[in-house]
Amino acid sequence: MAAVAGSASAGANGSAAAHRVGAPTNPMATALLTDQYQFSMAYAYWKAGKHADRAVKNPFGGEFTVFAGLEECIKFIANFKFTEDDILFLQSVMPMCEDAFFDYLRKTDCSDVEVYSIPEGSVVFPKVPLMRVEGPVAVVQLLETPFVNLINYASLVTTNAARHRHVAGKSKVLLEFGLRRAQGPDGAISASKYCFMGGFDATSNVLAGNLFGIPLRGTHSHAYVSSYMSLDEIPDKSLKSKDGSRVCKDFVSLVKEWLQKIQLADSLCGVFGETNQSELAAFASYALAFPTNFLALVDTYDVMRSGIPNFCAVALALHDLGYKASGIRLDSGDLAYLSIEARKVFRTLEKEFNVPAFGKMIITASNDLNEETIDALNKQGHEVDSFGIGTYLVTCYSQAALGCVFKLVEINSRPRIKLSEDVAKVSIPCKKRCFRLYGKEGYPLVDIMMRESEPSPKAGKRILCRHPFLESRRAYVVPQHVEELLQCYWPDKPRVELPSLEEIRGRCMQQLEKLRPDHIRRLNPTPYKVSVSAKLYEFIHSLWLNEAPVGELQ
Amino acid sequence: MAAVAGSASAGANGSAAAHRVGAPTNPMATALLTDQYQFSMAYAYWKAGKHADRAVKNPFGGEFTVFAGLEECIKFIANFKFTEDDILFLQSVMPMCEDAFFDYLRKTDCSDVEVYSIPEGSVVFPKVPLMRVEGPVAVVQLLETPFVNLINYASLVTTNAARHRHVAGKSKVLLEFGLRRAQGPDGAISASKYCFMGGFDATSNVLAGNLFGIPLRGTHSHAYVSSYMSLDEIPDKSLKSKDGSRVCKDFVSLVKEWLQKIQLADSLCGVFGETNQSELAAFASYALAFPTNFLALVDTYDVMRSGIPNFCAVALALHDLGYKASGIRLDSGDLAYLSIEARKVFRTLEKEFNVPAFGKMIITASNDLNEETIDALNKQGHEVDSFGIGTYLVTCYSQAALGCVFKLVEINSRPRIKLSEDVAKVSIPCKKRCFRLYGKEGYPLVDIMMRESEPSPKAGKRILCRHPFLESRRAYVVPQHVEELLQCYWPDKPRVELPSLEEIRGRCMQQLEKLRPDHIRRLNPTPYKVSVSAKLYEFIHSLWLNEAPVGELQ
Repeated sequence: MAAVAGSASAGANGSAAAHRVGAPTNPMATALLTDQYQFSMAYAYWKAGKHADRAVKNPFGGEFTVFAGLEECIKFIANFKFTEDDILFLQSVMPMCEDAFFDYLRKTDCSDVEVYSIPEGSVVFPKVPLMRVEGPVAVVQLLETPFVNLINYASLVTTNAARHRHVAGKSKVLLEFGLRRAQGPDGAISASKYCFMGGFDATSNVLAGNLFGIPLRGTHSHAYVSSYMSLDEIPDKSLKSKDGSRVCKDFVSLVKEWLQKIQLADSLCGVFGETNQSELAAFASYALAFPTNFLALVDTYDVMRSGIPNFCAVALALHDLGYKASGIRLDSGDLAYLSIEARKVFRTLEKEFNVPAFGKMIITASNDLNEETIDALNKQGHEVDSFGIGTYLVTCYSQAALGCVFKLVEINSRPRIKLSEDVAKVSIPCKKRCFRLYGKEGYPLVDIMMRESEPSPKAGKRILCRHPFLESRRAYVVPQHVEELLQCYWPDKPRVELPSLEEIRGRCMQQLEKLRPDHIRRLNPTPYKVSVSAKLYEFIHSLWLNEAPVGELQ
Repeated sequence: MAAVAGSASAGANGSAAAHRVGAPTNPMATALLTDQYQFSMAYAYWKAGKHADRAVKNPFGGEFTVFAGLEECIKFIANFKFTEDDILFLQSVMPMCEDAFFDYLRKTDCSDVEVYSIPEGSVVFPKVPLMRVEGPVAVVQLLETPFVNLINYASLVTTNAARHRHVAGKSKVLLEFGLRRAQGPDGAISASKYCFMGGFDATSNVLAGNLFGIPLRGTHSHAYVSSYMSLDEIPDKSLKSKDGSRVCKDFVSLVKEWLQKIQLADSLCGVFGETNQSELAAFASYALAFPTNFLALVDTYDVMRSGIPNFCAVALALHDLGYKASGIRLDSGDLAYLSIEARKVFRTLEKEFNVPAFGKMIITASNDLNEETIDALNKQGHEVDSFGIGTYLVTCYSQAALGCVFKLVEINSRPRIKLSEDVAKVSIPCKKRCFRLYGKEGYPLVDIMMRESEPSPKAGKRILCRHPFLESRRAYVVPQHVEELLQCYWPDKPRVELPSLEEIRGRCMQQLEKLRPDHIRRLNPTPYKVSVSAKLYEFIHSLWLNEAPVGELQ
């Protein structure tokens, strides 16, 4: 096995090419990032001489999920090492442990650990293990908490992003605006990374742009608009035309002329009266700074009476100089109605003043949006091209946690099972292989878990798929295509190359497209079937009977 | 003004003494951690020559809240500086900006910024500004997003922790177990810090223990129990007595003897039969590693038929050697019923075998707990001493985001107002002073905001407190004690000393105790009143009339 633990090559990067395992994105992801009882257990294992046992553990996804966080897990184990400071701290909080245990920790790395995993960005279903971690039990124990930490939120928010993409449709631009509401700086960084993975197009978070190469997008805030009082506050009013051929010495006057033309335009029947002058000053000033990229927030005072005519005046003045304004952002009010009304004005002005494509101005909406509100907008009809989504996206408001857990399934080649009065919580024991079986139409039909010793399912060959717990539920399947789900990520390959963020994002989009639409529809989706082989079924149930105490009714 | 920006003294530490401003806890909290449009606005301000205007901005709390995150904000501005790499990146994503702007950014720090804030750990109410940031508008703009990021989740989770403390009561031990479900590594670190601040007693997160000196607590997991098959797996069965006077050569046999005694005990009428031997092995092994600190998870197989008798056998064997077992953890099932039944067994054994305090064994409960479930347990009656809370605590499941915002309230000494069709979203303009007025019984009565030029309220002197928007709602108040809420944190003091985490935690607990109980009760709490002075009221409303467009009904 090629031990790459402790490698310290370049960190996360935004290149689209596959890259070597670097440092974890988050400097907090060190070997101390674990629950205290994991060290207690590691000590107890060490004390009992069990630290070299090989444990196999599975974290399960609780629902239909896009699996994410694998790259960070691999980086975590590649860099897993205790510093002398870490050891000193651990000694101070665990004074009852023998010194030799700390010597053991000093020497511990993950060179003896193996990780099999479903590729990041895959669509996964409950009960199928996302990942299998094998290695000395004390070390695997120390990986449990950080792995679950690194996978849970990552998978949750990627799934949330993918759901937003699904409801918004392929043609819309989705912007992640979550930095303000995420769990601190790194919560925000993770949110930006995984929202992009789940199908978003850009983020407002500059640091995420820098770390991962995610495109950056955003516009100004209400504060920028309120910061202006009048047009006199603009010191330099000159603007060079886009082709550099001439200079407009007083852009502000040009804007004022256009505002008047709009107010008097026959086709608008005088719908626009006086507009807010501080807003007009803010827009003009912003356009002077960003003539190639003018996007205005139009709801600080009144969208239809002030924001839209002010924006159009500035946009038409820019057009005179060869620039093309980007569009507007709506951040309050009835987004369906306002976007439709704004579109009408843009189209009317396109005709009135013969400005090609003015009617296609981008309309971005951004007020507390989520799956439900986008769905409602779609039903009402709207003219929004782009959605900026923050709070509901990054906090995963509608379900703020994913029930991803890590279960011991085998120790020293002996299967282990976790029983529970709740059948859904019973773990599926032993080291398994997992396959996705595809049908004639190219859709995945069912996932099947098998014992390691069983032969793989074959295309064209009938196989019995059983429900893991309900005896009567079983079906024969003739797969057209078979895909093995768990692949070795650590340390089997001579040099581990992880796919780039762009590649993982591509995988996610492609996997979602491949699913039968009723599995991913928003309302009442059909459950995707997850099964076990006949052999694994028999095995689980004999083990269960052996372990479960026989009740006594009194 | 003493410029301390760029100071690079020691980072976060766990000492109880006040400490100098160090580096931000999270290495991600760098000057790039902001929305892209903040740089766009900074450029537009710079381009318009407005970058030296003094802006005053207020982030508001959306509901009753414990204010947290101030220390991280102060550390953020103390370390606010763009590296050459940052500048290169910004140039690459904003190629349209002039070079001189980047030179301006190179020289930018927060030495010219002033921060007034309510002390961290204070109880705050909607509309009263938590913080006032003054300084060059371009710089203040760049602080908006990171400050809101650093305050929003911090205040949300501190408030959530304080609410859990309130419902659990003072006598219970509260443990934060959220690492697995937080937003990545730093989300977890923030959660641990702020849950402690809000009244929790300990965390399971080792890194948080190391960074902040928070006490560490936890027990083993189900995986530890499942990893054992039989008592034969324990290689070294010897245990020295607590006083070191003797060695028990076969602790496992001693445990077996005790298990038999329990099974035969008259007072238990033979309720205990065969127990799970792998569980017994795991408990015995854990006790050998942690004889002074034995706490067992008793629900892997069956709490009452296996976990409790196995635990008691090991605990009584430890007692023979002078040790005192800590207790049990329940992680599934009917926690009220199981805790009561477990307590009965402990008390019965205390009498049966004359083991003092055995009945007082600590019972920890930890299965998906939250405010509601703890409240329900309290109503049913239970014997739980300690609650371990994870998911619902750190994700703030019942309300995953706080609506804390940053508003421009004044520029160049001219007040600014943000209007909205929703009255609750109208900002209260201008630089303000804020006071809390206390009544005869020592409770706070009302918070009042005043214009900066007004004289402060005085104890014993009648003052009119007006609702900020509703004309008819006003009351005269004669305060017994007056507290000014906003204090200068940056850079007024020659060396800024921030209170320690312990001190902030103390402030939070004390402030919650000082509130009239009906303001913090769980169901239908009485809203706390927030008011403005008569002068500020007049001022707001005249500004509002000036700025708002007059509608036309057609």
